[in-house]
Amino acid sequence: MLRYYSFGPGANSLKPMLALYEKELEFEHKLLNPAKFEHHSDWYKAINPRGQVPALEDNGRIITESTVICEYLEDAHPTAVKLRPADPYDVAQMRIWTKWVDEYFCWCVSTIGWERHVSKMVKSLSDAEFEDVVKKIPVPEQQVKWRRARDGFPKDLLDEEMRKIAVSVRKLDDHLADNEWLAGGVYSLADICNFSIANGMQFGFAELVNTQDTPHLMRWIEQINERPNVKRVFANVPREF
Amino acid sequence: MLRYYSFGPGANSLKPMLALYEKELEFEHKLLNPAKFEHHSDWYKAINPRGQVPALEDNGRIITESTVICEYLEDAHPTAVKLRPADPYDVAQMRIWTKWVDEYFCWCVSTIGWERHVSKMVKSLSDAEFEDVVKKIPVPEQQVKWRRARDGFPKDLLDEEMRKIAVSVRKLDDHLADNEWLAGGVYSLADICNFSIANGMQFGFAELVNTQDTPHLMRWIEQINERPNVKRVFANVPREF
Repeated sequence: MLRYYSFGPGANSLKPMLALYEKELEFEHKLLNPAKFEHHSDWYKAINPRGQVPALEDNGRIITESTVICEYLEDAHPTAVKLRPADPYDVAQMRIWTKWVDEYFCWCVSTIGWERHVSKMVKSLSDAEFEDVVKKIPVPEQQVKWRRARDGFPKDLLDEEMRKIAVSVRKLDDHLADNEWLAGGVYSLADICNFSIANGMQFGFAELVNTQDTPHLMRWIEQINERPNVKRVFANVPREF
Repeated sequence: MLRYYSFGPGANSLKPMLALYEKELEFEHKLLNPAKFEHHSDWYKAINPRGQVPALEDNGRIITESTVICEYLEDAHPTAVKLRPADPYDVAQMRIWTKWVDEYFCWCVSTIGWERHVSKMVKSLSDAEFEDVVKKIPVPEQQVKWRRARDGFPKDLLDEEMRKIAVSVRKLDDHLADNEWLAGGVYSLADICNFSIANGMQFGFAELVNTQDTPHLMRWIEQINERPNVKRVFANVPREF
């Protein structure tokens, strides 16, 4: 039995969820509420000691890290629908794209998202309430991020993250100008992992992601949103708390 | 025909080289000299536009990113020697370890290595020579790193990297206390990728990596160094320029 722990269909939580839906695997979904800091609760840290979503439970065994879960689903639950290209060279190109999401693209988008959304949430807490939240966070680097969300991220950091977002958007649009999909000519985990971060930027970062400046990225975002199993994700799973 | 471009048997260049040797695959080795900035030369940027080693050429197709190359060798050149565990759950654990090297462990060790070694090299250049080097570097973040190596890395950054190195060493030693190998009970890419960064720390970071404080990490480093194909790497390929 598969059980999936996530914040719902956005960012890293969306990646394996799309894979689960595209492969039409049955799973139980445990939706955690980040506004209630459920991912830092003792019951969840017993599942992922790092206090991060998503996590997948497969017959009692836990797999963490969104990209690793995606590849695990391909390895452990092969289906007619393949989310990795057939040729090893194309798989390597796919992995360069998923690695790039994890090491570059997701971080810059995340910081701006935190500045816009998480900051408001944590600024409403008293000092004591906030310290109580922070002390339950097991990863030191995440504690720093929460403190920055409360104090305000430094301007030079925000500027640098916006520069990286512009680089990311350009890179995607340039590649998608000549390619229907990111790797190997087929819809793959490269698309799933990048889409999970890029989808919504046509609203939240409309000055960068729009039909004029990034027509190919827009085409690809729309094309993925039109897939029946992607529609099912957004229809079935609540997006926001 | 396989052709491998690297700086020799250390750090990221060592990862796929160990995989090539352990699998006993024939390959031509192109050794680049970082002190001559060969990785930023036009001929090499035609191979990897990011100007980074290692890169693998397989019948005219180029694969970059050390960890991706390691997985590619398993996918494209299966041999009797397997460097991924058999069970998909163990493969996922292996990937969490290789991902951790790429996102955390390699960076903190790299910064200190740059402070100690690259800084000396670039400080000996004139301003004009240095600017000539920097303008050939295609990745903006790498340009920043080279400038920091010349100006001196900020003290708070170096302190933070040393903290992360201590965390990394503790994490490895703790895990290796209860496990012969990092993932799935077998020697895998998890060991190869971590060893490529950890090997040599018993000398360069002897205050952290030693038989008293990290006996299990020391045991594992020695055990890998005793493998016949690992010995062949260090015997065959020059380590330092």
